[in-house]
This record gives sequence, C-alpha cells and structure tokens, in this order.
Amino acid sequence: MAEREGGPRPGGRSARVQASVHRATRDLLARLDRAEVTIPLIAAEAGVTPSTIYRRWGELNELLADVAVERLRPDMVPVETGSGIGDLLAWAEQYAEEMASSLGREMIRDVLAAEGEAGPRRCCGYVRQQIAAIAERAASRNEAFPDIDTILDRVVAPIVYRILFDEALGAERVGGLVEAAFVAA
Amino acid sequence: MAEREGGPRPGGRSARVQASVHRATRDLLARLDRAEVTIPLIAAEAGVTPSTIYRRWGELNELLADVAVERLRPDMVPVETGSGIGDLLAWAEQYAEEMASSLGREMIRDVLAAEGEAGPRRCCGYVRQQIAAIAERAASRNEAFPDIDTILDRVVAPIVYRILFDEALGAERVGGLVEAAFVAA
Repeated sequence: MAEREGGPRPGGRSARVQASVHRATRDLLARLDRAEVTIPLIAAEAGVTPSTIYRRWGELNELLADVAVERLRPDMVPVETGSGIGDLLAWAEQYAEEMASSLGREMIRDVLAAEGEAGPRRCCGYVRQQIAAIAERAASRNEAFPDIDTILDRVVAPIVYRILFDEALGAERVGGLVEAAFVAA
Repeated sequence: MAEREGGPRPGGRSARVQASVHRATRDLLARLDRAEVTIPLIAAEAGVTPSTIYRRWGELNELLADVAVERLRPDMVPVETGSGIGDLLAWAEQYAEEMASSLGREMIRDVLAAEGEAGPRRCCGYVRQQIAAIAERAASRNEAFPDIDTILDRVVAPIVYRILFDEALGAERVGGLVEAAFVAA
C-alpha cells in the first residue's frame, strides 16, 4: 500500500479502476456477510477481472484494509464551536461514537488485519490532521491548546483501546478525558 | 470462546487435546510463514483429526486468537521494587517492550482478528490483574496509587495505540506516562 501513498493520478484509468473496486467492495459489504465477500465477486460487481484485483491488492485482506482506510479519511472540517476545548470535545465525542459503531469496529479491524503499517499509520495521520485543524483555530484565537501527541495519548488512545479491548467509553467519559488533557496543558 | 472461559477440566481429554493443538500451532508459527499455517497441518502436527479442530474452534482465525490470548496470560507476578510507582514503571516498560516486539504485535493482531469480544476482553483482564497486584502491594505499604482505570487510560492505552497505529513508545516515554498518572492520582 505504501508505494501508492499519494493514490493514482485522479481521473486516470487506474483511479477509475480503484474507485470502481472500492465502490463494489463497499456495496457488497453492505449487502452480504463479510465471509461471503470474495475477490471474484468484487471483480464481477466492479466490472473488472479478478486478476486486476489480485495484481493490484494481492489479497482480500489488503483490499478490505484499503477500503477501510479510505472510509476513515475525514470528509469534513471539525465542527467550530468558538473555543478549542469545545471543538475538541465535539470532535472526540463524534469520533468515539463513530469508531464504537459496528461499522467503525469493522473498519478498525480491517485496517489492522492487513500486512504492514502503512494503513494504520494513515489512520493515525487523519486523526492528527483533524486535531491540528482544531489546534490552528485555537492558536488564531490565542488560546492555549495541548500538543497533538498529548491528545493522541490522553484522548484518542483510550477511546480506541477501550473499543478494541474493553467497553466503549460513553460521551461523559470522553468529555472527562478531553478536560483532563486541557488541565495538563 | 466465551463458553470455555474457565478452560476445560485440567488433565481431562479435552484439556489434553487443547494443549496439544496449542503446542502444535505455536511450533508451526515458529517454523513457518503465517500464511502457510493451516488447520490440516496443525492437526497432523498435533496428532488429531482436522475435524476435531474445526468442531472446537470453527476456523483458523479463532484458533490463532485462542493461542495468542493464552500466550498473553501473564506467567509471573509483577517485579517488586519497593514502591508502587517503581513496580508500575518496571511492569509498564516490560509490557511495552514485549507488545512492540514482532511476536507481541502478531499476538495482538491475532487476538483482534477473531470474531467476538471474548478474546480481547480476556487480554484486558490480564492487564487489570497485573495492575491490581501492584496496587494491592502499594496499599499494604499505605502508598497512594492511581485506580486501575486511570492506569488503563493513561499508561496501557497509549502504549497499545502507538504500537498499532503509530510508532512504539520508548522506555522514556513510557516512564513519563507512568509518572503523569501518579501526579494525577
């Protein structure tokens, strides 16, 4: 996955194949049990040959991870509430809720099931981008704001760890984590 | 996996089959590439029929998760250093190092790849047990000690999150997390 970090040239044949295979995979995952989704089925749905998929993704795990990472790419600017802590609270509550949903859990699992670290790191990169956007707005208002690694350790990590290994944290607990990260800053 | 929470009766036929299949799986994982390890191979190595394994574990993912959870079960009491913070520091550094190793990463991945939450929760339970043992020793010395959930959020979660999604934390960063958790307590 690493060598395609920037993605194929937009609008090119390769980009169209990728978009079509991703769409087919998402559609099949929505309609079928995960165990029923296979590369030949995806190929038929996407209108490409199975070997196109094998050549490009190698195996199903890699394709599912690629689709999951793409879905985790944020498609909106974090909500603006008027303060850095307010923005972070709103973002963290939404993130915790989305990741704890069954779709969110499935995406995390797919990302982690593929070989290599490129997929998981892209996910962490998306989170960093969102937090950085909130931090920049706070800086433009001359507000103190914790550094991004503090927020990863103190807010994002417990949200994700609890979802994967324990019980998902509710909005109140997430709010407590955000407030504690600000006290530390 | 949930229904076998306590494991089969020690010494019984079922326990012997489980021990033999686990041992065969560990041996094969040590000798072969992960992708080459199959249920028929494990069965041959363990001296059982493949259907014994299918009946009991359903599929390879579940068996690999079961073996990984078993390996993550702590086999020693946390090192005693004379203080709660010293004990927690020693435990956290060792935990971070073990989980960041390639064997540790593989075990986490195997645990998360299986269906259901029983395996991941058992892993979190093992961590809780180790921290509780350290906390009890601290209490017997009348020392202040953070509560277990604080340590899960502030120490364990960032260690595991960084291994899975970013870059493993070094001993110094882990030490900083432990100290910060104590300041908060």
